[in-house]
Amino acid sequence: MRDSDKIAVGIIGASGYGGVQLVRLLLDHPKVEIVYLGGDSSAGKPYSELYPHLGHCFNLTIEPIDLDKVTSRCQVVFLGLPNGLACEIAPTLIEKGCKVLDLSADYRFSNLETYSAWYKKERSDRATAAMAVYGLPELYRDEIRQAQLIGCPGCYPTASLLALAPLLKQGLIVPETAIIDAKSGTSGGGRQAKTNLLLAEADNSLGAYGVTKHRHTPEIEQICSELAGHEIRVQFTPHLIPMVRGILSTVYATMRDPGLVREDLITIYTALYRSSPFIKVLPTGVYPQTKWACGTNLCYIGIEVDPRTDRVIVLSAIDNLIKGQSGQAIQCLNLMMGWQETLGLPQLSFYP
Amino acid sequence: MRDSDKIAVGIIGASGYGGVQLVRLLLDHPKVEIVYLGGDSSAGKPYSELYPHLGHCFNLTIEPIDLDKVTSRCQVVFLGLPNGLACEIAPTLIEKGCKVLDLSADYRFSNLETYSAWYKKERSDRATAAMAVYGLPELYRDEIRQAQLIGCPGCYPTASLLALAPLLKQGLIVPETAIIDAKSGTSGGGRQAKTNLLLAEADNSLGAYGVTKHRHTPEIEQICSELAGHEIRVQFTPHLIPMVRGILSTVYATMRDPGLVREDLITIYTALYRSSPFIKVLPTGVYPQTKWACGTNLCYIGIEVDPRTDRVIVLSAIDNLIKGQSGQAIQCLNLMMGWQETLGLPQLSFYP
Amino acid sequence: MRDSDKIAVGIIGASGYGGVQLVRLLLDHPKVEIVYLGGDSSAGKPYSELYPHLGHCFNLTIEPIDLDKVTSRCQVVFLGLPNGLACEIAPTLIEKGCKVLDLSADYRFSNLETYSAWYKKERSDRATAAMAVYGLPELYRDEIRQAQLIGCPGCYPTASLLALAPLLKQGLIVPETAIIDAKSGTSGGGRQAKTNLLLAEADNSLGAYGVTKHRHTPEIEQICSELAGHEIRVQFTPHLIPMVRGILSTVYATMRDPGLVREDLITIYTALYRSSPFIKVLPTGVYPQTKWACGTNLCYIGIEVDPRTDRVIVLSAIDNLIKGQSGQAIQCLNLMMGWQETLGLPQLSFYP
Amino acid sequence: MRDSDKIAVGIIGASGYGGVQLVRLLLDHPKVEIVYLGGDSSAGKPYSELYPHLGHCFNLTIEPIDLDKVTSRCQVVFLGLPNGLACEIAPTLIEKGCKVLDLSADYRFSNLETYSAWYKKERSDRATAAMAVYGLPELYRDEIRQAQLIGCPGCYPTASLLALAPLLKQGLIVPETAIIDAKSGTSGGGRQAKTNLLLAEADNSLGAYGVTKHRHTPEIEQICSELAGHEIRVQFTPHLIPMVRGILSTVYATMRDPGLVREDLITIYTALYRSSPFIKVLPTGVYPQTKWACGTNLCYIGIEVDPRTDRVIVLSAIDNLIKGQSGQAIQCLNLMMGWQETLGLPQLSFYP
Repeated sequence: MRDSDKIAVGIIGASGYGGVQLVRLLLDHPKVEIVYLGGDSSAGKPYSELYPHLGHCFNLTIEPIDLDKVTSRCQVVFLGLPNGLACEIAPTLIEKGCKVLDLSADYRFSNLETYSAWYKKERSDRATAAMAVYGLPELYRDEIRQAQLIGCPGCYPTASLLALAPLLKQGLIVPETAIIDAKSGTSGGGRQAKTNLLLAEADNSLGAYGVTKHRHTPEIEQICSELAGHEIRVQFTPHLIPMVRGILSTVYATMRDPGLVREDLITIYTALYRSSPFIKVLPTGVYPQTKWACGTNLCYIGIEVDPRTDRVIVLSAIDNLIKGQSGQAIQCLNLMMGWQETLGLPQLSFYP
Repeated sequence: MRDSDKIAVGIIGASGYGGVQLVRLLLDHPKVEIVYLGGDSSAGKPYSELYPHLGHCFNLTIEPIDLDKVTSRCQVVFLGLPNGLACEIAPTLIEKGCKVLDLSADYRFSNLETYSAWYKKERSDRATAAMAVYGLPELYRDEIRQAQLIGCPGCYPTASLLALAPLLKQGLIVPETAIIDAKSGTSGGGRQAKTNLLLAEADNSLGAYGVTKHRHTPEIEQICSELAGHEIRVQFTPHLIPMVRGILSTVYATMRDPGLVREDLITIYTALYRSSPFIKVLPTGVYPQTKWACGTNLCYIGIEVDPRTDRVIVLSAIDNLIKGQSGQAIQCLNLMMGWQETLGLPQLSFYP
Repeated sequence: MRDSDKIAVGIIGASGYGGVQLVRLLLDHPKVEIVYLGGDSSAGKPYSELYPHLGHCFNLTIEPIDLDKVTSRCQVVFLGLPNGLACEIAPTLIEKGCKVLDLSADYRFSNLETYSAWYKKERSDRATAAMAVYGLPELYRDEIRQAQLIGCPGCYPTASLLALAPLLKQGLIVPETAIIDAKSGTSGGGRQAKTNLLLAEADNSLGAYGVTKHRHTPEIEQICSELAGHEIRVQFTPHLIPMVRGILSTVYATMRDPGLVREDLITIYTALYRSSPFIKVLPTGVYPQTKWACGTNLCYIGIEVDPRTDRVIVLSAIDNLIKGQSGQAIQCLNLMMGWQETLGLPQLSFYP
Repeated sequence: MRDSDKIAVGIIGASGYGGVQLVRLLLDHPKVEIVYLGGDSSAGKPYSELYPHLGHCFNLTIEPIDLDKVTSRCQVVFLGLPNGLACEIAPTLIEKGCKVLDLSADYRFSNLETYSAWYKKERSDRATAAMAVYGLPELYRDEIRQAQLIGCPGCYPTASLLALAPLLKQGLIVPETAIIDAKSGTSGGGRQAKTNLLLAEADNSLGAYGVTKHRHTPEIEQICSELAGHEIRVQFTPHLIPMVRGILSTVYATMRDPGLVREDLITIYTALYRSSPFIKVLPTGVYPQTKWACGTNLCYIGIEVDPRTDRVIVLSAIDNLIKGQSGQAIQCLNLMMGWQETLGLPQLSFYP
């Protein structure tokens, strides 16, 4: 029998890395119980066949996706589906009263034309989309608290926006000069077997991809434009790093006021993130290592100013699968439910 | 002011990987508070200088080692010192009433001549050594409950003995045929900078070391002999693997009764480890991945029988720094204090 | 126009790692010119689309497999196809007078029943199979010189047999006690995208696979039986290591004469491999690192004797894609053509 | 007896990664023989004790540094010493008629005040320093041909300048907008044992270092200023990547003429590097992987233009220890001796 103090949660699209992170984190969450796993190609499989290490403590079987079942059993539904599928089922879930947290790109855009241009899919769920809130709590905490539908941010936008937001909000930089050089572990590419993500290919190597064309670009620009108060373009270049987890964003921008020193900026960041329990602004001269964030929902931020070039350089490190995906979704859930924001979310990495 | 429901714990030798694991695990432990960190070369440094990622939640400074201070402040002391140093200070700590858990080799041996032969150090603390219990709870749970001094097992012996113990206890193998081919991540070598542990040297490479001569050999043999009821020799070969954490032990032995099939052995292992919450015996045909155990105090065990050769092959996987070191020490502490054995110890890895 | 001093070589199945190693090595070979690449799914693609880094020096396009074309253009054909396909086309190639070097398992077995039992395929090419020579030059140099068809050894058998052969040849061990604990980088699994070979899965982890059932077992046993003079069974356990290239075989066996010391064995190995330019027997106390062999056709061998257990432990390290596959095939070709055995084969790794 | 067709070469400071690369490459060089290895802390050691994998083909012993011996035996001397030591001995070597190639920073700067400011060392060898040529053959080929003393470029400057030079030479960008986000494997940190370069620390992690302050900054600026025709400042940020070898430089700059498309730039780069055999400009849409360059003296360059931001993004990949260090030194030697520029330098990587 289900613990009556806990809310019933379902995950549709549970077989990938987003799914397994949700499962792992929710198993430790004191107010949630996973009652449903839904999938397509993996329907009928016990979850422990996909992830044997969980067999000792979790034995649900993945069920075919049946929205009636989902809505009758679950108060909250996480969607871990490929882009373009969530928007087919979210309207029904919303209508039946579920709270929905979508990990895909489908509900991240306030302008569906932008979505359609970058994701090559027409949308017919405008009313539902209009309800969605962008699930970055450090910027939209109040809106998330009231939301029924969350478009959870991409991993790169999470790291990049947390680094850039204070600069844009305070008008400290020339927005058009912003360049984001981002580096991600290969788990960001998902569990689908792709040749370029094989250890034999990706290990001991390094390269950029999607240069000038990565789909996280418009997502970053949407939020940056909102913060800057006018539409801006940012340069965003992702790189694949020979490691499993973690994103580092190195952000460059020209300062409006060249008189600022790094200590000023550390003070400003610290103040702006004072009520954000997962943001850790580092002291002078300390730059984040992605490993510090691994296995946690934290974002470490290091700040440097170059008086020779009048640029600010901000470095942000997150675990791409936790703060960059599933952990952040749970952080949003905590806010939606009126729980403590940090509930069930790890803050201590296992170093080394 | 210290939380009065918590016991006061000190760590002497806190700067290495054993120390930082203890700190990280104890910070999450509901009944323990770290009140003292002692060190020699690192004395005077704030702990966050050594491990900046902990700065946001832990700000003790490492103090010079002063046994009077330690014993006046701490009920429990963990020793994370190099081999040969614990035996100099444990007698004092014990005399003053502290419970002591030593991570080094100093209190692992019932026969101090064996220790002296392999570790090249004469011992003058026979009375103290005689009190020590070998801290492998799956084999010595009752003794640990009564102990004041624990000699915490080495990482290789932990993985190897958990794989071998049921075979020896039940008399299922010819003991002299036991061969342990063990593989460890490089964190087992500690945080001292050694050339062979540099990423540039160790990554994308693999080799054996200490062949026939590794100091964990007599430790494994001591316990195996005890289980077998007569003195035996085992073949133990450690290998350095290009990864951070994890040990896999591949154990080979000739079965006494060639009629046994793998399902029989899985049944026997499951039964013998039924009351051991951290041991996870895997189903037929599933072999452990070290990654499943990383970040946990678990030991996964997979079993195979080869009817062509009448051998049993047992595979055990642990996190060398948790079940192989600091986590196991805390498991012992839980038993010594009469707490639940699993208290504060993680059982879910972050996969992948 | 083709250089008339060079022989014309074709590769059927050139898209995988075996293929690209052949291409890379043959491009540096002074007496060979690649005139044909054949493939199925990759037919029509310029080779540089599969491997862009070669675009600057190699621009053949993969052609559909057409045996008439192959035999009319090529004196020598390398087959890099999946198991079970070479035996369909080798008879034609042989009949038309080509020399054939097959990288698959199809021509490794003197007993086709063994092949059929382990590879689940009936064979109708008995006459051709009877002509095949097992392509391990250190053991079958003379036979290879006379051969028209080579069954190139598997990667694990190469490392394991080079370690075991002197012991069996000289009758130094009890053959039935031989245990081979082998460790391989993930490139051994090929370029096909498989989930378990993804960097996100395989990196920072370690596990065994195919325990008691790996298909290289009967191949090792066939040669060991031949060397021992009677049929023997060996224990063979492969492990997947988080690195790209390299195999380490750790071989254990009980010595017949416990009086032998490691220096004796080093002398014996050195003598037996004196005319084998790629075998490097290491001095006392030095154990091979796989990285030393990477990018070369070398096999490093380290030897240890344990007087406590009367066992010998032999460690052998190779590059699985060169000495374990394509380099060894070229070594065979050199012998077949009467060229110097080392021609075009690298002997110096890029360390680190 | 020495091969009289070969020139006699010595290496002072041969124990580190620069040294072992030189040894490995020179062993394959048809016109060079290594006759002397000099060192300080490693004096008296056979080289194979430091690098056992070379024992089979190279058995020199490292000698104490004795300049008389060096100059009497060697026509060419490579210096692989820490910064600040080469300038103490190069004047003597030059005076005695040796050609000198220094891998350290000592002879890279035309302005010794810049050197002294960044490297904290006063210099008294102005006459010698004035003779030195910056050893980047793609930019200074003619000067190198005439030189007796080469200051070999740093690894980051090599990758960065090869990416930036055509843009600056042709006046295609606004120089002050140049941002270099560089990523290096850990072998760039040398073979000294440092905690942050341990596999346990550096693997599966990623971070920036030396932000705004790395010593390669003034070196890059010196050459960029020369190319631009006026003094400019560049933003340079190095990152440590969890891999052994390789550097990727991601270079951003604002174009003067926003009408240029990437094909234009590919044409320009191809033309400017037409006589540079080691530069491989990639076709449209292909971005370099560092692994393609590993084990070679090549530099792969990929180019992208972002019409949304009017920026050009250039990606360059090298092997930091070959094109970024020892290989480039040998390329310089080839030019100094009037040999073919590519002599003895590898152009084919072992992929994967």
